[in-house]
This record gives sequence, structure tokens and C-alpha cells, in this order.
Amino acid sequence: MTTFSFAIGATDAAARTGVITTARGEIRTPAFMPVGTAGTVKAMLPESVRETGADIILGNTYHLMLRPGAERVAKLGGLHKLMNWPRPILTDSGGFQVMSLAQLRKLDETGVSFQSHLDGAMHHLTPERSMEIQALLGSDIHMVLDECTPFPANERDAESSMELSMRWAKRSKTAFREAPGRALFGIIQGSIYPKLRERSANALREIGFPGYAVGGLAVGEGQARMFEVLDFTLPHLPTERPRYLMGVGKPDDIVGAVMRGIDMFDCVLPTRSGRNGQAFTKRGPVNLRNARHAEDPRPLEADCRCPACREYCRAYLHHLVKSDEILASMLLTWHNLTHYQDLTAALREAITQKRLADHAASLLKAYASGDVDPN
Amino acid sequence: MTTFSFAIGATDAAARTGVITTARGEIRTPAFMPVGTAGTVKAMLPESVRETGADIILGNTYHLMLRPGAERVAKLGGLHKLMNWPRPILTDSGGFQVMSLAQLRKLDETGVSFQSHLDGAMHHLTPERSMEIQALLGSDIHMVLDECTPFPANERDAESSMELSMRWAKRSKTAFREAPGRALFGIIQGSIYPKLRERSANALREIGFPGYAVGGLAVGEGQARMFEVLDFTLPHLPTERPRYLMGVGKPDDIVGAVMRGIDMFDCVLPTRSGRNGQAFTKRGPVNLRNARHAEDPRPLEADCRCPACREYCRAYLHHLVKSDEILASMLLTWHNLTHYQDLTAALREAITQKRLADHAASLLKAYASGDVDPN
Repeated sequence: MTTFSFAIGATDAAARTGVITTARGEIRTPAFMPVGTAGTVKAMLPESVRETGADIILGNTYHLMLRPGAERVAKLGGLHKLMNWPRPILTDSGGFQVMSLAQLRKLDETGVSFQSHLDGAMHHLTPERSMEIQALLGSDIHMVLDECTPFPANERDAESSMELSMRWAKRSKTAFREAPGRALFGIIQGSIYPKLRERSANALREIGFPGYAVGGLAVGEGQARMFEVLDFTLPHLPTERPRYLMGVGKPDDIVGAVMRGIDMFDCVLPTRSGRNGQAFTKRGPVNLRNARHAEDPRPLEADCRCPACREYCRAYLHHLVKSDEILASMLLTWHNLTHYQDLTAALREAITQKRLADHAASLLKAYASGDVDPN
Repeated sequence: MTTFSFAIGATDAAARTGVITTARGEIRTPAFMPVGTAGTVKAMLPESVRETGADIILGNTYHLMLRPGAERVAKLGGLHKLMNWPRPILTDSGGFQVMSLAQLRKLDETGVSFQSHLDGAMHHLTPERSMEIQALLGSDIHMVLDECTPFPANERDAESSMELSMRWAKRSKTAFREAPGRALFGIIQGSIYPKLRERSANALREIGFPGYAVGGLAVGEGQARMFEVLDFTLPHLPTERPRYLMGVGKPDDIVGAVMRGIDMFDCVLPTRSGRNGQAFTKRGPVNLRNARHAEDPRPLEADCRCPACREYCRAYLHHLVKSDEILASMLLTWHNLTHYQDLTAALREAITQKRLADHAASLLKAYASGDVDPN
């Protein structure tokens, strides 16, 4: 019987590699989790997601509870079976998207009431219901229900929001449905205030979780401030537990966060950008809609292993994007997820070889160099 | 050096199997050609199209001449290389879509002038320009420029339209750019009038083509009348040349046409329907948007080899369709193309075993039985 565990491998300054073990397989960290919002990583077959190198994907509780519905997913054998992804899945609590997508939302001590953006039906999401839903979905890593404190927030508002999240974290832990190899992660809030982040971290450690997420970032505060928050927050977390930076980010965000000791990431950026004609490359983002690609016979990236780069030229990708062809979304999503997985794989290797600082510097320099004369 | 050829294999009444040889490989007939409108079979990787069993795909001259442009495609190495499909491609002449999609179109003896539906630019498509474009695209089977006579048409209009098409067929033949293993097909017109169809067939035979298409059908005349036209038209075609029924059709259209001696088909139905949530099955069409699938744990078809049926249940496909997920288009297109390829493969086998009539009867009975109690 598998027990959820985290084993640290190599370290390089604050950064580390590791392996998270779940009932459905191992996750090599630092790990990037592609987002499978509504039970599909958009425009990708799950076997293609695996081919990019992903060990784990994320499912959105908010979307799945509304459609197809948690009870229905359970009846159909759980999310893994339904979407044909047998490996680890992390589900968020639903809270973040209730606040960003739902209508008529009302938050009180019990939880948050809202109206579905799909059919107008009323729902009440509490820590207890979030735990129930995540168990019905059958994911491997569950997240506590929290309030993602809006940015900016003054210290008083950030404090009461954080304290509410801490009470919900305790209720989440109590309501968590244990299963072999399954884990519940806590989420640190406290906005940009060092004392609040410290109090939040301590509150969560007191409750005790096998993993800790940093929430309330990537909400408009900017990279410098995000790194600052990580700098004063992470020292308050136990080194022996995985640390997950929620909703982050751009490739250079990931580089900087790994250097500060983050182990896990999720973000819609590679998938969403892929559907919008934007590719991430080792020389920074490339907008394939741009007319300069119209007659370019070169691959998007000569040394990339993804099918978009191996089998097609920029002129064709440009044509597909301009023509709104589904294949454009398929190929560019595949490329972007490959970029993110290769990025984290290279970071893991650099940590193992204790050359992360040099590697990071050369990555950031290349990102900033631009795609003026690529390949 | 490959020569274009057609070798008939088995025959069963009017039906036959065969192999068309082109410079880029063989085509087993009866063959269904998936439509790759703008240089991509929508929602499919080309290797997946091949996996369904397709030997040849169709490219639309109208779409490709406007975007990315024939000269540009040639500069980039031709359509096969651009879209990563190394096997045979048939291109239509562009005429049909000029008449159905373009604006401000004006037809005269020289050809047809029209305004692009994309950017308003004026174009003039003549038999000579169509031959030039198809050579620039580099396809393996070219089609003469013709006027697809609208339906209904009185006999006088059908006659003058057919005669224009025959003059254009002659000009197309003269302008055709020969290449090893490449062929130009003639197109029979004449609407629903036996004498006009006969005259058209004779006119084309006099010009001489390595293959003959039946045009001007599947334009609203209905299946019975279409079969009638085939019945009185095909006897005027040489048995030793491939016969292509353009733009057809539903699975039962294909069954009936193969029984009458047709060798090749193309149609957007499996791809377009796939993007609209409709699946073709051995028990007829299934609309996956329908709520009756919402909790159905069964596969779409238990004995289908496509990934949609092998890896997923109806409830999931329903969920994807309802959620407008790209994966719905990907999986249902894959399924539908598999259905069409398996249909033609089974027809070839039935002809070889001289049991086509029985096979066709049982296919049509199953199609009509409906999906009430599937699998």
C-alpha cells in the first residue's frame, strides 16, 4: 500500500530536486503541472501530455463540480478513468475560480455561495463540501479551501482574510477523506505582509500537512514582489515537505521560484497561449500570428523535440494560426507544454549538478535575447 | 519512375476493387478521401489520419490559393511537405468553392472572376490558372476546372453549363503540368439529364483522361436521384479508369455508389460532423450532445478501434461536446474518419469475396436500426 511521501534528492543553495510518491505514481520535482480545467488538458490527448514529460496534471474543482458534476464523475469511476489519465492528479479547492468566474458570490464564515456561470444554479462551497468533491473526483493531491486574498489588500483586510483561510484549513483537514497515497496540502495566505505570511505558515504547520502551497500570488503583484514574498515566506515552511507555488507562471517566474526552493507549479499559460498562437521558446515568446513568419521555412525551434518543431515550419504554423485551425492549438499547446517540461527537467539536472545559478543566468539571458534571429 | 496507373482487382457485379498507383504511393479503391481543406484535415494530426487507414487526402484549391497562396506553398516545398502528409493528395479545381464561397463572382468563357471571402482581393480563375495552381501545390491528382451546374437546372441551362465545362476540360488538359505519376481527371456534368451525361462522358473520353469524376451531384437532388444518375452515367465511362464521385457522402450513399461501380469519394461529412458532436456508427448517426449520454459508461462503439471508443465512455464524450472542448472535435473526427475507412475497407473485402450485395444489405439494415440500444 502506497504512502504519500516526499524524498529530497539533490540540493543547490535553496533549490532542491525530489520525488513525490502517490498511489498513482511518482512526481519528479521541481514539477510543472499542466492544467486540465474541465477534465481535459485543452487540445491534447492525455498520452501526448505524458509524452511532453508531465508526471501530474491539475483538475479544477470549480469546473468539474458544475460539469459534469462530482457525483457523476464518481459514478463513472473517477476523474482518472473518465479522462484516461492514470497518473497523479492534483485538484484545487474550487475557491479561486468561484471568486473569479462565478456570479452572485457571497462569502461568509461557512464558505462561499455562488451561482454557476453555466446554468445559474446556486451552490454552496464549504471546506467540507470541497473535501467531499475532491474525494468524489478521486484526485491524489487535494487542496484546502481558502480565500485567495485579492491584490492589493491592506494589512487589516489581508489579516482577516488569512485568518478565515486558516480556520477553513483546519476544517478542511478534519473533513479530508483519507485514502492510501493521497494527501491534503495547506495553503499559505497573507498577501505581501511578512508577519501575516509567517503567522499563516505557523498556523498551517500547527495543523500539519504533508505539503504546503503558497497562495495569493500571481494576482498582479509583479515578479519582483512575488519573489520577495517567497523570500520571506519559505523559511517558515518545513524543508522536508513539498512546496507548491499556485498559478505560476512564466518561464522566468519558474526559474526564480525554483531557485528559492519551490517544488511544484501549475499555470494555464502554456496551454492558453498555445491556443492564441503564442509559443514559448528558449529565446522568449514568439507570436506566430506575426506576418514575419509567413514565408519562414525554418522550424519554430530547431532543437525542440515536439511535433510542431520536428514536422512543420514556421510558415505552416503561421498559416494554421491565421486560419484558426484546430491543429494550430494542438501543435502550439504541445510545443508549449514540451517547453515547460524541458525547462523543469533541465532545472532538475542543474540542481543535481550544483550549477543552478549559472544555468538560470544563461536561461534568463537567452529568454531576454528575443527571437530576432532564431535558431 | 512511377507511372500513374489503375489496376482492377476483384469485381462483384458492377462493383470493383482496385489499386491506383501514384508517385507518392498506392490508393486502395473503393477509397474515401478525408478533406484537408486549408492544408490540414481539421482537428487531426496527419499521422492520425493515416492511422485511420486513409491512403489519400483532398486539398481545396480555392482555400489554398487564397491562403497561404499557391506560389508560397511551392516556395515552401509543396503541400505534402508543408502539411507533413507524404502520401497522395488530390486537389479539386477551385471552381466549386468559388461558386459557393466567394463574393462578386462572374463567370464567362475565360473562367471565373471573384473576390476573396478573406480579404476582398480580386482573382481570376481559368482552366490554365487552376492547372498552374495545382502544379504549384504539387498534388498527385488534379481536377479539370468545371462549372458545377446548380440544382435544379432546366435542360437548356444544364446543357450550356455542361458544354462550357467540356471546353474548359479541353483547355485544362492542354494546360495540365505533367509530372511522373501525376494524373488529371475529367469531370462529367449534365445534371439529371441522361443525354447530357452521355454527351459529357463522350466528350471527356474523346479528350482522354486517366480518371473520370462524376460532378454536379450531392447538391440537393437526393439519394434516389443521385443513384439514378449514376445508373445511366457510369455505363458511358471506360471500365478500366477510376471513377470518382465528388463530394459524397453519407455512409449509405457510399455503399450504394460502390455497388454501382464508383471507386473514389470525398466528403466533409465525417470531419465536419465530428466537430459538431455527431458520430457515425454501425447503427447510424449518434448525437453526443444528447442528454441521454450524460451518464452512459459505455463506449461509443464497443468494437471500434479508434481512441474515442477504446479509451473513453459516452458520458465523457458528451461532457467534452457540451463543454466545447477541442478534444471533442479531435476524438469525434478521429472516430468518424475511422468509421469511413473501415466502411470502405469492408466494402473492398466484400467485393473480393463476391458477397457485396449481402454485406450492403446488412450494413444498411444496421444503419437504419438506430442507436436505441447500442453495443
